Amino acid sequence: VNFASDNAYGAMPEILASLARAGEGAARSYGDDETTARLRKRLSEIFEHEVFVYPVITGTAANALALATLAPPHGAIFCHAESHIAVDECGAPEFFTHGAKLVPLEGEHGKISPQAIEHALAHFQKGFVHHAQPAAISLTQASERGTVYARDELGAIADVARKHDLKLHVDGARFANALVSLKASPADLTWRAGVNVLSFGATKNGALGAEAVIFFHRQDVADFEYRRKKSGHLLSKMRFVSAQLDAYLEDGRWLKAASHANALARKLGEDLAKIPGAELASPVQANAVFARLPNQTIARLRKAGAVFYDWSPPAGGKTLIRLVLSFATSEEAVDRFIAAARG
Amino acid sequence: VNFASDNAYGAMPEILASLARAGEGAARSYGDDETTARLRKRLSEIFEHEVFVYPVITGTAANALALATLAPPHGAIFCHAESHIAVDECGAPEFFTHGAKLVPLEGEHGKISPQAIEHALAHFQKGFVHHAQPAAISLTQASERGTVYARDELGAIADVARKHDLKLHVDGARFANALVSLKASPADLTWRAGVNVLSFGATKNGALGAEAVIFFHRQDVADFEYRRKKSGHLLSKMRFVSAQLDAYLEDGRWLKAASHANALARKLGEDLAKIPGAELASPVQANAVFARLPNQTIARLRKAGAVFYDWSPPAGGKTLIRLVLSFATSEEAVDRFIAAARG
Amino acid sequence: VNFASDNAYGAMPEILASLARAGEGAARSYGDDETTARLRKRLSEIFEHEVFVYPVITGTAANALALATLAPPHGAIFCHAESHIAVDECGAPEFFTHGAKLVPLEGEHGKISPQAIEHALAHFQKGFVHHAQPAAISLTQASERGTVYARDELGAIADVARKHDLKLHVDGARFANALVSLKASPADLTWRAGVNVLSFGATKNGALGAEAVIFFHRQDVADFEYRRKKSGHLLSKMRFVSAQLDAYLEDGRWLKAASHANALARKLGEDLAKIPGAELASPVQANAVFARLPNQTIARLRKAGAVFYDWSPPAGGKTLIRLVLSFATSEEAVDRFIAAARG
Amino acid sequence: VNFASDNAYGAMPEILASLARAGEGAARSYGDDETTARLRKRLSEIFEHEVFVYPVITGTAANALALATLAPPHGAIFCHAESHIAVDECGAPEFFTHGAKLVPLEGEHGKISPQAIEHALAHFQKGFVHHAQPAAISLTQASERGTVYARDELGAIADVARKHDLKLHVDGARFANALVSLKASPADLTWRAGVNVLSFGATKNGALGAEAVIFFHRQDVADFEYRRKKSGHLLSKMRFVSAQLDAYLEDGRWLKAASHANALARKLGEDLAKIPGAELASPVQANAVFARLPNQTIARLRKAGAVFYDWSPPAGGKTLIRLVLSFATSEEAVDRFIAAARG
Repeated sequence: VNFASDNAYGAMPEILASLARAGEGAARSYGDDETTARLRKRLSEIFEHEVFVYPVITGTAANALALATLAPPHGAIFCHAESHIAVDECGAPEFFTHGAKLVPLEGEHGKISPQAIEHALAHFQKGFVHHAQPAAISLTQASERGTVYARDELGAIADVARKHDLKLHVDGARFANALVSLKASPADLTWRAGVNVLSFGATKNGALGAEAVIFFHRQDVADFEYRRKKSGHLLSKMRFVSAQLDAYLEDGRWLKAASHANALARKLGEDLAKIPGAELASPVQANAVFARLPNQTIARLRKAGAVFYDWSPPAGGKTLIRLVLSFATSEEAVDRFIAAARG
Repeated sequence: VNFASDNAYGAMPEILASLARAGEGAARSYGDDETTARLRKRLSEIFEHEVFVYPVITGTAANALALATLAPPHGAIFCHAESHIAVDECGAPEFFTHGAKLVPLEGEHGKISPQAIEHALAHFQKGFVHHAQPAAISLTQASERGTVYARDELGAIADVARKHDLKLHVDGARFANALVSLKASPADLTWRAGVNVLSFGATKNGALGAEAVIFFHRQDVADFEYRRKKSGHLLSKMRFVSAQLDAYLEDGRWLKAASHANALARKLGEDLAKIPGAELASPVQANAVFARLPNQTIARLRKAGAVFYDWSPPAGGKTLIRLVLSFATSEEAVDRFIAAARG
Repeated sequence: VNFASDNAYGAMPEILASLARAGEGAARSYGDDETTARLRKRLSEIFEHEVFVYPVITGTAANALALATLAPPHGAIFCHAESHIAVDECGAPEFFTHGAKLVPLEGEHGKISPQAIEHALAHFQKGFVHHAQPAAISLTQASERGTVYARDELGAIADVARKHDLKLHVDGARFANALVSLKASPADLTWRAGVNVLSFGATKNGALGAEAVIFFHRQDVADFEYRRKKSGHLLSKMRFVSAQLDAYLEDGRWLKAASHANALARKLGEDLAKIPGAELASPVQANAVFARLPNQTIARLRKAGAVFYDWSPPAGGKTLIRLVLSFATSEEAVDRFIAAARG
Repeated sequence: VNFASDNAYGAMPEILASLARAGEGAARSYGDDETTARLRKRLSEIFEHEVFVYPVITGTAANALALATLAPPHGAIFCHAESHIAVDECGAPEFFTHGAKLVPLEGEHGKISPQAIEHALAHFQKGFVHHAQPAAISLTQASERGTVYARDELGAIADVARKHDLKLHVDGARFANALVSLKASPADLTWRAGVNVLSFGATKNGALGAEAVIFFHRQDVADFEYRRKKSGHLLSKMRFVSAQLDAYLEDGRWLKAASHANALARKLGEDLAKIPGAELASPVQANAVFARLPNQTIARLRKAGAVFYDWSPPAGGKTLIRLVLSFATSEEAVDRFIAAARG
């Protein structure tokens, strides 16, 4: 039972199969190929809008490239204090932006609020050269705490962005999980709400290594293509990344995989909540469960072979752990985990 | 007939097959997996030396990360004026090194000479803060002109490096082609000759997207791992890149593929040289042919559907073209090309 | 009455006079001159330790260069959330460090506590490439709130630095003010306490534009000299900056000026505290007074021509203002301010 | 006799005197002061055009900031292979531009030709993400070899810039020397000829440390002010730099000083050319003499106490030396030098 991360698992068979097809014959390199063109078309249909699509191979690259395109070196980017860009990318956004400043904001359940952004903005004087200049907001959908921004929550943040002339970035490493959780359309959670650029993840949900930076307006693309090349993220045989994304999207495969993982998370959360001494730390809205378990329960689980991360150090006899369910997790694994937790 | 580049073709079937195997079951992410461990072991055997191996997905990333690890921001890196790092990476080395200086050197057939390096070094005063400080030499094996550095040529450059306390980097995007051309061992062309780090390419020779940065001494690795992460080049499902490299190396597959491409290049070069008005511009030592052909011959080839690049603008009724042969090129394609060239 | 900043005033006459003397005859450029040598000697005496001294012309340059020398691009630097480096330098530390991360810490009266640092450190896993790596602590002496770190407070922070193998930087834009406030020796507030590098300010306390980056250990200097040149901060006629610093230090001029400013601040604080509705927001320990005054008092002061900054937006009928006293402020100005405040 | 550099000498008395005046009373900091406003007005008159003026303290800062404002990180900047930005700034342009590429061009007497630029441009494919994108031309007026670009030479380069949509930067560390040499107006040598931004030097010609970045069109200023702050080059007591520049320009002081230095250089050149075995290496058009002297003559000069730099290593019994004359050099020093050379 491995609930360490959704990147602990391999890839969907259909995605693997797509690679062989993509490699047939000679093709133009660096993304001028037919597979990439097909992907672009498919995404425009899915998003009901012309989109500008750039496949890359990691979420960190997608985020850092997107943010560097939105924010100048003297810019400030507002994000959750626990967000991947703030905590888990070794300062990639600072590197790619050439020294922009991430402004970490507190917020319950991994989400930032419009109020927190407004409060932080009050400390930045526009046009004052001593201050980094507010340039962008980045939020994570689904969040690092397995929660989602409902449409009105997203809209309220987009209002702040519009009011202060900030760009809006969404880290969608688990975008599919948010989508099926919210029963919303891709358009509703992005450009219709005011999102400028989306880091669209597929790796965690069944690809080998495939993400796409998706811009919704041509002018936002700016010098993105030079940044991608200059950072070594333009693959010569791009079609092999595009093929992953294309197979991922085909036949609603991405949504089915996310629904599966979300459903297991919901079940795991519900079952876990019934265990004496256990409590959910955040609502289960995507494919992760954050729970506080008694330390002896945790010890028992680990002894039984369960793999997962502590999210904070033990406190008061309990520890906050993170359990991530994936496209490849079986219901039986959840049952075994619960059984082991019950002891 | 597509001789545009060795990246125009897909991937070896055995490499594609290795991906499915690599994806089975849960695994540790970010390179702590068994496939990556096996690759590391295999490369240590091949190089007859403990090596420190970091798979990435593009040659630009491999080069820029390697150079940034060797050279400080105030460093100078000596390279050929036509080298990939100088011309074709949109300034990636400058970005990754935080502003180091590439010093472009002229040299016949895409190769730099010890004399050219010494001559350039004379312009840099050591310890003089106004000058960028010589830090590294980067050479390309096989070179952008399809030639190779013989062991004594490599040794002479390594002597310059040692004398001036410079690190030595080899851009081995086509390392396999050089190896079979020179009938040398991997060790002889690297650490035994004084090479500190190798960008070891597999993409052009049959992988989907897989290169490895290979250090030969632990102390040279320095902060490489942070640089890789900070630049978005650490894949969560690393095993899918490692698997490509592992299958590439297994059973001498990489050398067979390179031998095939080199042999076709040799044949193409020989046949081409016999065509009236054609002349080889550089010796054919790897998998590329550089030839000056009459413009009408070129027009005829293009009309027949041949795909290739002009290397310089037409001059004196002829044009210098580049023809690249790959692991996937057939002998029949070479014959058709020659037939079309003959008219 | 201008209490806006200690940089609103010109320069001490003796410092101006020193410039003419420094300019006589030909001299070696870029700091190899006698004035700079004399300054270095004088500072070594003052600090009772061999020091490595690099004059620059702004505090932002001093801080950013010092931090870039201490922290790698993947480093994390712990500082107060209101510190100059975090708030008022437009991201200069991020630029000079090539993307290191400032970690802003809350703390009363502009000071960070050892506990706050320890708490923040707990979120960074050493050697984990996804996390920025803790590299340095930066504190401001005297702080942005006009307070000082007592020797035991400084020592406790230095203990944290030692324990976690972090370098310790002090932003001493107002170091003289702290020194006379604490009646401590320069050595006690720096290397004896474990400080690695000091941004030693003179501009605010009577120079035209002169700061010095002072390292206390040769190995900490690392590649500082290249960084200074590469950022355009190496002056050809360095002697004119060194002369300012030398005249500043001569005859205890710096300490007298700081004592003067501190004494006026104390007096202003005491007098202000007696005004109905006024309250000090922080203890007055250096040359600044932070006070909450009724908005009508503030309006009256401004009408009377007093110049000063609001520190936060009005709240509850009062506003937090900052009043900075300088080497050039007269006691009479303080009296006039108080008279105007009384109305 | 010190002919090492024009930065070996101090400052004009009138410039020193201006500092005391500038420091009187309280003033707004960071350039919002009256002295800076007066400077801006004066420069607009001198250039017969609205100019956007930003004083800094080194030529390296002026150049690097100007170029970073003109060229994106993926840009290419064409300059002479011996130019200060290419050779003597430790890679400052690469740092400030975040990794743009300087393209070094050969050219006689320290000058680049339109042909050389066109030839280099032919290697860069516009819009091709693999290539750095041509962004700017930088030339030095007067050049590192003591020569000047005549108006038609400048115009021809500006034509290339316009044709290829490149910005044009002039490193005018010795702009005054060029101006009096060419008997041209400041406008003719800048905006009227198509120059976008000028690094206007005063340090070498009699200031303590004062240069100005001068833009001729508001849109070219772009985010310059943030770059200046972020690099630590915004002085709080800016008026002390502005005062230097203002006094430098007042009463044509700058032109008189440059005329003086140029006249001495001409005289030195003429007298030197008559010495047996000596030959001028470049025409003497500004305040520097480049001459090849017999090694024994050089030894005799050094023995007599003359200070100057070798420009290249001895060859064929002679050595190329550089002799720089300054605002503070006396005619008598020239005579003594010639006398010593004659032996």
